[in-house]
Amino acid sequence: MCQGFSASGIYAGIKKKELKDLGLIVSDVPAAVAGVFTKNQIKAAPVLLDMERIKSGTCRAVIANSGNANCCTGDQGIKNAIRMAKAVAEKLGVPEEMVLVSSTGVIGQNLPVEKIESNIPRLFDVLSSDGFIDFAESIMTTDTKPKMLSRKVAVAGKFFSITGIAKGAGMIRPDMATMLSYVCTDVEADPTTLKRLLKDAVNLSYNRITIDGDTSTNDTVLILANGKSGLSLHDAAVKDAFKDALEEMLITLAKMVVKDGEGVTKLVEIKVSGAASNEDAKIMADTVAHSNLVKTAFFGEDANWGRIIGALGRSGVTLNPDTIDICFNDIMLVKNGLWCGAETETAATKVMKLPEFAVNIDVHLGVGQASCWTCDFSIDYVKINADYRS
Amino acid sequence: MCQGFSASGIYAGIKKKELKDLGLIVSDVPAAVAGVFTKNQIKAAPVLLDMERIKSGTCRAVIANSGNANCCTGDQGIKNAIRMAKAVAEKLGVPEEMVLVSSTGVIGQNLPVEKIESNIPRLFDVLSSDGFIDFAESIMTTDTKPKMLSRKVAVAGKFFSITGIAKGAGMIRPDMATMLSYVCTDVEADPTTLKRLLKDAVNLSYNRITIDGDTSTNDTVLILANGKSGLSLHDAAVKDAFKDALEEMLITLAKMVVKDGEGVTKLVEIKVSGAASNEDAKIMADTVAHSNLVKTAFFGEDANWGRIIGALGRSGVTLNPDTIDICFNDIMLVKNGLWCGAETETAATKVMKLPEFAVNIDVHLGVGQASCWTCDFSIDYVKINADYRS
Repeated sequence: MCQGFSASGIYAGIKKKELKDLGLIVSDVPAAVAGVFTKNQIKAAPVLLDMERIKSGTCRAVIANSGNANCCTGDQGIKNAIRMAKAVAEKLGVPEEMVLVSSTGVIGQNLPVEKIESNIPRLFDVLSSDGFIDFAESIMTTDTKPKMLSRKVAVAGKFFSITGIAKGAGMIRPDMATMLSYVCTDVEADPTTLKRLLKDAVNLSYNRITIDGDTSTNDTVLILANGKSGLSLHDAAVKDAFKDALEEMLITLAKMVVKDGEGVTKLVEIKVSGAASNEDAKIMADTVAHSNLVKTAFFGEDANWGRIIGALGRSGVTLNPDTIDICFNDIMLVKNGLWCGAETETAATKVMKLPEFAVNIDVHLGVGQASCWTCDFSIDYVKINADYRS
Repeated sequence: MCQGFSASGIYAGIKKKELKDLGLIVSDVPAAVAGVFTKNQIKAAPVLLDMERIKSGTCRAVIANSGNANCCTGDQGIKNAIRMAKAVAEKLGVPEEMVLVSSTGVIGQNLPVEKIESNIPRLFDVLSSDGFIDFAESIMTTDTKPKMLSRKVAVAGKFFSITGIAKGAGMIRPDMATMLSYVCTDVEADPTTLKRLLKDAVNLSYNRITIDGDTSTNDTVLILANGKSGLSLHDAAVKDAFKDALEEMLITLAKMVVKDGEGVTKLVEIKVSGAASNEDAKIMADTVAHSNLVKTAFFGEDANWGRIIGALGRSGVTLNPDTIDICFNDIMLVKNGLWCGAETETAATKVMKLPEFAVNIDVHLGVGQASCWTCDFSIDYVKINADYRS
């Protein structure tokens, strides 16, 4: 685990069921910090607070709760977010601006802030370098399992570590950062470099996944770097190694988020190549990845490529219908816009029974390409989302 | 019914189940014709054929089949569409260009055109002025009932009639015309006026509904006017009455399409007012209407207004989070961006138990407004679409 970081997670009575709902990450020393936040215009109180506080470039701790999003809660919401942070800052003996806050859960109800305040001593009591998995649990909503990864990376005989945590499930789409994700590392970094590396990694990971095309009011990705490893991003070799490790970690976490999406049974990569530009490829991949008809066909293990063609055709990108190839993994189902026959369809249907597969689309117009990870759309997705608040 | 029109619908063996799958509409005399077609770049063969043939402004008949979309079928598809039309033209003794063609069903398989040709004599045998309901049945795919309306309109002691037919179900979204719809009328019209009136009416009806955000490769709306009533659109009073009747009919058919959408249990009007412009209001209404999270909450009868706010916030339209009001019918659930409390929520939840209700959103930024009709997103939607081709 990362040196100089500890974490914890407990049940504080915010959720109806007795499941962890309050979490804390603390750095022993002030850490450089950077963040990426939701592009939704309706931003929850903790997002608004963090966007202000992160400007200083340093922080000591992050407190997060699940069960209540503290969103659409007006002035009271901002006051409650400040109170959460203040209670942590007082325990640490630091200025309250050094503490960041996240919330996730139901929108529009006031945060039970007294419950949070009264549980903060207990949250500190159980702080430990092994507590990240408890933190990961404490931010879960409809996730079925906590998502945490740790990497130890060697550079010229020394080591640095990265620990990443994510929560996902519903309300995820490209260009929206993600749900909640936290990265702690013991490299030394300045906030500007950290932010650039984070943005690049998020564009390759959380911004390339979709579950239901909806975006949240609370999406937040934070990275804290406390320098405890003695390795610095100012060293080019460290920076390269860190960049690679961060990207790999966020891509893996992003895929874990899709796989644990609401009611998801399959992880599917939509890969478009041969587009006139990378941007065109991205638009096409996203349109296919968001199509409910495509996603229900994935669930039904039906190689219904007509729906894929239909989605490509409405994407807004200029296409030649007669030069489209579609493969399921390496099985070519459509060649030059025409079906390759019943035999290949049987083979493609077998591919769809895998828990992970790729739909490879080549439009033969240029060299642009892009990928997007999506999932199937199942009966359980509807069940989960119809009943979410009850 | 309209004078000088007859129709029929039979089972020709295209569908696996023995359900009507081949339909015909014939005008006794050449009719003025206009059409609106899918904006999807992948257009089925019959759409490509009709778009050419409609340029002449007249036609005598429309032949349509369900069970096979004749889409992504290359040159063979065009040849088959031409053969369908030719068989009808020969029976009528008219040039083959006077016959239009529609197909709906599975994409990418060649049309069983011999089955269609051999059944055309039988289709003519049962032609009748009462045959429109059979025609409406013959174009059904996942629709649960045929959709047909007739109106008789008086102008200065004389009458004209309009008959409208639609098929819908999946793959419907605004700005995509619709699935298939046919309008027959016995007014006298020129093709240019007919096209303008049709476009305006479609923009108020089929382009304002959404079921799953997907768009079809085969969407077609055709209107035929044969002049048999003796009333002409060149008479301003007739034109006004016709415009009103056409709009009312297409809006009613559009709502019938949503209500009979795949797995739909509720018809919901999303009405946005107080926007800076009508265009802004349309974007916001469409974003809410397309949100899977909003639609699953409708299914669950959960007044989860946070999801509505979330959709508004990601619509791309500039908003003030503190001036948003949301009512379910006349129950105000959100005032100035804040929840109005448990009592109003209980009342709003009761509204959601109705088979039809409105979500009225006022963003208090101007006078722009727009409506969109949507539906809930149910477990049956997923079941129907996972299994569509099996």
